Amino acid sequence: MDSVKVGLLGFGTIGGGVADILINKADQIAAATGKRIELVKICDKDLTSDRGVAVPDGVLTDDLSQIMDNPEISIVVELIGGIEPARSFVLRALQSGKDIVTANKALIANCGPELFDKARELGRTIAFEASVCGGIPLLSSIQTSLQANTINSIKAIVNGTCNFILSKMEEDGSAYADVLKEAQKRGYAEADPTLDVNGSDSTQKLAILAQLAFGAKVDWKQISRVGVDVVDAVDVKFAKELGRRIRLLAIAERSSEGLVLQVCPTLIPETSALAKVTDAVNGAEVVGDFVDSVFYQGWGAGRRPTASAVCSDVIDTALGRTRITFDSLRLWSAERPGVDVMDAKKICGRAYLRMTIEDRVGVMAQVAAALAAHSISIESMLQPTKASSSDDCTSLIILTHEASSEALDAAVAELDSKSFVRGKTIRLAVRD
Amino acid sequence: MDSVKVGLLGFGTIGGGVADILINKADQIAAATGKRIELVKICDKDLTSDRGVAVPDGVLTDDLSQIMDNPEISIVVELIGGIEPARSFVLRALQSGKDIVTANKALIANCGPELFDKARELGRTIAFEASVCGGIPLLSSIQTSLQANTINSIKAIVNGTCNFILSKMEEDGSAYADVLKEAQKRGYAEADPTLDVNGSDSTQKLAILAQLAFGAKVDWKQISRVGVDVVDAVDVKFAKELGRRIRLLAIAERSSEGLVLQVCPTLIPETSALAKVTDAVNGAEVVGDFVDSVFYQGWGAGRRPTASAVCSDVIDTALGRTRITFDSLRLWSAERPGVDVMDAKKICGRAYLRMTIEDRVGVMAQVAAALAAHSISIESMLQPTKASSSDDCTSLIILTHEASSEALDAAVAELDSKSFVRGKTIRLAVRD
Repeated sequence: MDSVKVGLLGFGTIGGGVADILINKADQIAAATGKRIELVKICDKDLTSDRGVAVPDGVLTDDLSQIMDNPEISIVVELIGGIEPARSFVLRALQSGKDIVTANKALIANCGPELFDKARELGRTIAFEASVCGGIPLLSSIQTSLQANTINSIKAIVNGTCNFILSKMEEDGSAYADVLKEAQKRGYAEADPTLDVNGSDSTQKLAILAQLAFGAKVDWKQISRVGVDVVDAVDVKFAKELGRRIRLLAIAERSSEGLVLQVCPTLIPETSALAKVTDAVNGAEVVGDFVDSVFYQGWGAGRRPTASAVCSDVIDTALGRTRITFDSLRLWSAERPGVDVMDAKKICGRAYLRMTIEDRVGVMAQVAAALAAHSISIESMLQPTKASSSDDCTSLIILTHEASSEALDAAVAELDSKSFVRGKTIRLAVRD
Repeated sequence: MDSVKVGLLGFGTIGGGVADILINKADQIAAATGKRIELVKICDKDLTSDRGVAVPDGVLTDDLSQIMDNPEISIVVELIGGIEPARSFVLRALQSGKDIVTANKALIANCGPELFDKARELGRTIAFEASVCGGIPLLSSIQTSLQANTINSIKAIVNGTCNFILSKMEEDGSAYADVLKEAQKRGYAEADPTLDVNGSDSTQKLAILAQLAFGAKVDWKQISRVGVDVVDAVDVKFAKELGRRIRLLAIAERSSEGLVLQVCPTLIPETSALAKVTDAVNGAEVVGDFVDSVFYQGWGAGRRPTASAVCSDVIDTALGRTRITFDSLRLWSAERPGVDVMDAKKICGRAYLRMTIEDRVGVMAQVAAALAAHSISIESMLQPTKASSSDDCTSLIILTHEASSEALDAAVAELDSKSFVRGKTIRLAVRD
């Protein structure tokens, strides 16, 4: 039987799961696919920690050249994470004639064009299913199963940490800070959770989806982004009263003015499939012109689901399916057809605004006037019961009709400059 | 640019959708994949009906040989449905050196081993994504994306007609017969809906899933099967009171005694993802040892979603991905590893029984005694309020603890023979 040799860079949580599959399921995979896949080297600086998987003698090394300079290794799995040194290692592996499998969304979102061009130049391939929604075969669906469709929209929960926080706040009315602490205790959130909770992680994944499904080339840092770190218990409560749930949605959607890209905590109807995704789970709704709506749900991260996606890519690469997909799609290349991305300022939608205002006669009228001055029409305005009657301030919640991001930005800036507005106005999205 | 020529057998509803994509999206597909796919011939007996798609002159023919004997055509799409003449046509096309794409679950479920052996012998391929859950990329997920997993279970709603009927009964309390009529009026159910409502269609699809996910070779007629045609409005109402919904589930599940295969209207918790699948939609929950649970939802049938799946297979075949998958999986072959199917009689589970009994003292005790005699333990017993107090009969609903199918069969047969039981006892499954 044919055999394919694999080298693994990075032996952390995911690396342990990948090793578990490639070592302990080698016979099963060979029997099922007719191809023997051998994990021959794992490179990591840490040679001693227990990763919960027994590795044969001589496999674990801290010497990178044992993978890079081993001509027998044809597939390199990159599980280091982050941009450097992952980028340099991937470039070196490509130069050494190896195909790449990676779970690294930061690397693909930031260096996709460079790495894919280099791979094409060298006749190699890159597979990256695990970089977005590990447990959901979302990328392969878009790349192959839905390939006869024009994709019209993707609305997705791509960050499990944020979904855990939002659904936990919803479940027991907890404050954001308390839930974040619990997420960290459970290992769902990192010690520094910034990139998750400020929406950066979701935005990087959205940039990848935008290229795959729409051929859009976009710098993720240019995408309109709001994180869950602005969401307060009162927002969750209000959404509930409106028959809605708040989910951090990454949205890519065709419009007559280009591709709308947006990451924002969004009030969606409680009956929608995405609203029903709770816990540290991911979900995605893809709408194609022929298939209509397809919905997926599964674990977005974690050792075993991510390892499942990585190893599927390893098998696809070993069997040659990755080669066909890679060559036909020409991702991030100049030849790949794609749509233009709409200016984030021009994106229109309904908004949820929450501000803290002085509790006196005439203030609500001034808020309404400020919005009207920017042509923003109000759908409803709610003033929750104050926590304490001695408080001279009160929350004010406003649902607007459709308005451009530009107009909302300007209106919010104007409002925030008023003496009767305390702190900063929070702005979430509203979608049906 | 490379070009691949396609012939289409059967120009009905799905055929019209496939022609729509292959004709009207030819440029888009060529730009996206680097391969030009040309639909050069469509064969159908009916040369005159309007299929809602403009076909170039000379493409539509009633002469089969224009496809079979055209050496330029390398892919034949079979959309005739049923076993014959579809089987003979597929065999002839394989003999003529053509790869097959089909949406025909009856053909694959009944003739899989013969057709796949023949294709292997002749060096051809067969793709059949559209045969199960058209709008959901379920087969490709199992065949590729989840390939690093041992699949532990599949629970799926694979028949849109039945799901429409059950969710409509649930929504407005209608009787089965009325909802069936509405389904027929809307085009969701055929004039003769037997194969849908008696569970045959779901069972054929389950047999296909059993081979794909578990390597099980099974005659679909041997699979334990109950259709939605036994479900009454009172069952739907009772399920609701128990916090449950009834869904026609096709289940394949590993157990220590082999693969459990079962098609049955099943009472599942209303909070489960499958319970939330309403309308003529399909859903599937696949559990793998590494990925854990993945859930999919989408249109199961209909012109456009099915055409989406068929055309994805056509593109995969044209690009060579189908060849790799076909060769590596060796479906329905002797070499493919697989699990044994458990004897349907030995399958254990909780059951929901509904019987009509004489409304007099002592009858419930006799029912309980009959179940106890077969070692069936009762979880709860409910006697709904009678529709009319003058009625001398009443419904009795029993939820059992785990019992074997064999014991339940015997107990129900004994009960149905008693003079105090009217008609036949209805038995549904209960799952968490």
